This record gives sequence, C-alpha cells and structure tokens, in this order.
Amino acid sequence: MAGPMVELPGFQDHLAEIATETDQLLGEILTPPTDAAPGEARLWEAMRYATLGAGKRLRACLAVEGAEMLGVPRARALRAAAAVECLHAYSLVHDDLPAMDDDDLRRGKPTTHRAFDDATAILAGDALQTLAFEILADPATHKDGAARAELCHALAKAAGAPGMVGGQMIDIAAETAKTPFDLAVITRLQAMKTGALIRFAAESGAILARDQSAREALALYARHLGLAFQIRDDLLDVEGDVEAMGKQVRKDAEAGKATFVSELGIEGARKAAARERDSAIAALASFGPAARRLREAAEFAIQRQS
Amino acid sequence: MAGPMVELPGFQDHLAEIATETDQLLGEILTPPTDAAPGEARLWEAMRYATLGAGKRLRACLAVEGAEMLGVPRARALRAAAAVECLHAYSLVHDDLPAMDDDDLRRGKPTTHRAFDDATAILAGDALQTLAFEILADPATHKDGAARAELCHALAKAAGAPGMVGGQMIDIAAETAKTPFDLAVITRLQAMKTGALIRFAAESGAILARDQSAREALALYARHLGLAFQIRDDLLDVEGDVEAMGKQVRKDAEAGKATFVSELGIEGARKAAARERDSAIAALASFGPAARRLREAAEFAIQRQS
Repeated sequence: MAGPMVELPGFQDHLAEIATETDQLLGEILTPPTDAAPGEARLWEAMRYATLGAGKRLRACLAVEGAEMLGVPRARALRAAAAVECLHAYSLVHDDLPAMDDDDLRRGKPTTHRAFDDATAILAGDALQTLAFEILADPATHKDGAARAELCHALAKAAGAPGMVGGQMIDIAAETAKTPFDLAVITRLQAMKTGALIRFAAESGAILARDQSAREALALYARHLGLAFQIRDDLLDVEGDVEAMGKQVRKDAEAGKATFVSELGIEGARKAAARERDSAIAALASFGPAARRLREAAEFAIQRQS
Repeated sequence: MAGPMVELPGFQDHLAEIATETDQLLGEILTPPTDAAPGEARLWEAMRYATLGAGKRLRACLAVEGAEMLGVPRARALRAAAAVECLHAYSLVHDDLPAMDDDDLRRGKPTTHRAFDDATAILAGDALQTLAFEILADPATHKDGAARAELCHALAKAAGAPGMVGGQMIDIAAETAKTPFDLAVITRLQAMKTGALIRFAAESGAILARDQSAREALALYARHLGLAFQIRDDLLDVEGDVEAMGKQVRKDAEAGKATFVSELGIEGARKAAARERDSAIAALASFGPAARRLREAAEFAIQRQS
C-alpha cells in the first residue's frame, strides 16, 4: 500500500479516547422512550446503528480540542462533538441511499439502508439531523442562550444549501457533467460538502467560549485542514483498499470524475495536501503550545490510511 | 360531496393573506447565491418548488395569530411561520418519496421527486429542514438569544424522533401490522406525526413573547386542534376527491389501515372532531376576544374541504 505510515500513535490514542467519550454521550442521548409504539424502536435502533461505534470522530476531536484549548468545560464540548457527529452520520446515511451513491458498505459494515430498509434510513437520517440541533439548543450545552442560538445558526449554515447539501448537489452534477469540473469548482464543492462541517466543528469551541478572535483563527485553520483532509480522501480513493477504508474505493476514477488527484496528479496532490497542512498549522500560531492536538490533527488529516 | 360547506370565508381570506406574507418572506430567503456552481441552482429550485405557492399555511397561521395575540412584532412572527412551513414542506417531500408513500401528486402538482428526481428531492428536503433551524436561530428572529435557542429546541423536539419522524415510523409500522392498531396507538401516532409540529407552530408566538403561561395554554389548544385536524384528514380521505384535495385519496382504507374513521365510524369521527374543536376553543378562554382568529382556526380545522 502506498503512502507514508501513520506516525502519530499518540494522537490516534487521543482520538480514540474522544471517540469513546463522544459515543458514551451519544449512547445516552439515543435512548428510545420507554413507552415507544411499534415502529419507534426500529427508528432509534437505526439511529444508533448509523451513529455509534464507528467513524474516526475527527469532527468530534476538532470540537473537543478547540474547546479544551479555550478553557471550555469538557461536558459542553462533548455536546457540540455529539451534535456534529449526528449531523455527519445523517449525511452519510442519506449519501449512501440507492437514489444517491447506492453504497453497500460504510465504516466496515452494511450501510443503514442495507441493514434496515430505505424508508427507515431516510427517516433515521432525518431524525439525526434534527437531533443535532436539539442537542445544541438544549440548555445543558451552554447557560447562555445566545451561545446556543449561535451554535444552531452556524451548524445550519454549514449543513444546509449554502454548505454540505449544496456541495453534495455539485458533486452529483459532477457525475453527469460533459466536461470535468475545473479546480476552482472542485475546491468550492469540497469546501461546501466536507469543509463546512469541519469548520463548524473547529469553530464550536470558540462559540462556546464566546471568543470571536479565536473563532476566526479556528475558521482559517479549519478551511485549510478541510482541504488537506479532502485531498487525502482523493488520494486514498486511488491508493487505499476496501478493507482499510471500510467503504468502496476507486469510485471517482471509475466514474471519470474530476478530483484533486485527477487535476494535480498524485505527487501534485500530495504536495498540495502538505501545503494545506502547513497553512492550517500556521493559523494556530497565536494559541501557542495549547494548540498541540489541533496541529497533530492537521498532520493526521494528510497521513491517515483510512 | 359529503361534509358541511365551509362557513368561514372571513377566516379563509385571512389565511390567504398570511399565506401571501409567508410566501413573500420564504421567496426572499430561498434566493440562490449569485456565484452558484452547477447543481446548486437545481437544489434551490427544488426547495422553492416544494415550499412556495401552495399549501393551506395553517401552521403559518397558527404561528402568526398566536404571536399577534401576544403583541409580538409581525416580522418576527413571520419568521417563525416561515420556519415551520419549511419544516412541513421537507416532511412532505420525504413522505412522498418512492421509498416511502410513493406519491405522484401533492398540493395539486407533481411531487418534488417527480418534478426533479429522487436524489434532488432527498437533498432539497434535507436542506429545507436545515433552513428551518437557520431561520429560527438567526438574530433577525429575536434579539434575545434565549428565545432563539428555545425556538430551535422546541422545533427539534417536535420534528425529530420524539415527534414527527417517530410518528411517521409508527405510521409505516401500521401498514404492515398484522392486527390494526387501537385508538390509543393511532392517537399517539397522530400526536407525534402531525400534532407535534402544529403544537410548535401555536407555541412559537408565546416563545417569541417569552410568556410561559400563554405557552401552556396554546400547547393545550394545539393538542386538541391537532387531533381535530387529523380526524378531519381521515374523514376527507374517505369523503374527499382528488381534485379538491390535490393529492391521492382513499389510500388508508385501501391499505386496510386503522384510522379514526375506521375505529369510530364516520359519525363517531365527526363527533370526536367537534369535541376536540370545543376543547381547543376552551383552552383559549383566558385570552378573551384577542383569540378570535385562533378560535376560527379550530373551526376551520374540522370544516375544511381539503
């Protein structure tokens, strides 16, 4: 397998810890009502299936580390992390549907619509999106209503038509485009489809801390990190294997879709990813040593094997 | 056609006015970015198609009238109305999908997935849900962050697994149930599937007014109004025709599904609807003459022909 070996075991252990804590909170939140009627239990089961015990939790990590760096209590940071992971899980469930990418495998197990059925997957995704906002708006997330409202507002802008969903529509258009999209459109696509939610995750700690200048620095960091992450994704689509990735690979190349790799070549894409990592790390300068884990996250984004 | 004639022309004109104002705001909000990439324009077009120029706007009316009664500025009330209509529109788009009810007709025109395609309909629905929260969390909706956060929290509880989506799952379970559900489960189903969002609409004015006792009275009003509305829906499914309804009729009876009509009979259902209307109106007692339009809305819920 091509690509450098992962050299950040300390960071990966740390990521695993945050994943465990986030999963624990999500497990509590995703508890069905005791008086559930027929059908309801299946919905909660599908929501748990799509959300728990899988995924790298990179977004949760960005939320928790940004918050930690700014002195936000862990319990609040974990709620933002849980919300962003619900939102991310919903997007994967819907992306995998037969009407969309029609994928059978996700995070190393059958996709939600394969494990349940299409209707349940649509509704579980819908309810996971709603849950993300319910978690953020809950008084447990912050005592200041303005902070909760701003979290909801920022997540909505990141997740909706101006962000993730809009990016997904560009991605669908890319599949049927007569001429492949140029680098400017690919960059916009990725900034919307994956970048916006990564940015929200990174900013959430600063929103919880009510620190506008930290928020701007973290937004800049996240913009570069998101691009680094996506370029690595395109490289893994070419270089990775199904087992390590837990999902189908070489889909983009087979579909003749323009990616960072098709536009820049493998070496060019690697260099571009490294440049984005450097810019991400540079954006953290004002935070000093406290930003160590966020620097490692930028390194991880371009070294990861899955 | 059976059923009494609508005797509330004044109310219907009023409803039409609120519909026009809500549509105007939604039309402004649903403006695509000027630098949209391929695919994005189609998303916004589908969102507009699913949301604008159709529907009774009963939910918008409840939001606007509740707010008006409590002295909330019209501009704020219309934002809550727009949010609840986005949420409602998303739920219809997803309910109509082939994997769900597989309907071709909605509000007198082709369903969104028929007019566009399944993937676009899924994503337009997703983005409309997000937009509902974006509208509520925006500082334009209320200067007090706590009010915005509470609107988001209440909408999330109404729309997600504990509310609308959970109710939809019970409804799907009803279609394959070996024995039809009893009245208790049907009531729970409807309270979740349609009642929760109607209740949010009615409560939103009190949330904007920061008036907890008004909120409780409006919640009680809405619980009864929602049931009245749903019983009327079941009656219309039996008595209505496609042209007036703008959607397929007699689906429940053909599917052998338990409804208020199958459980109570036509006369029993009419009486139950009237009782719910009376209870809804009784819940408004403390508001005096200011609640006139909300009383008319309860009357409209059981008299409407579509």
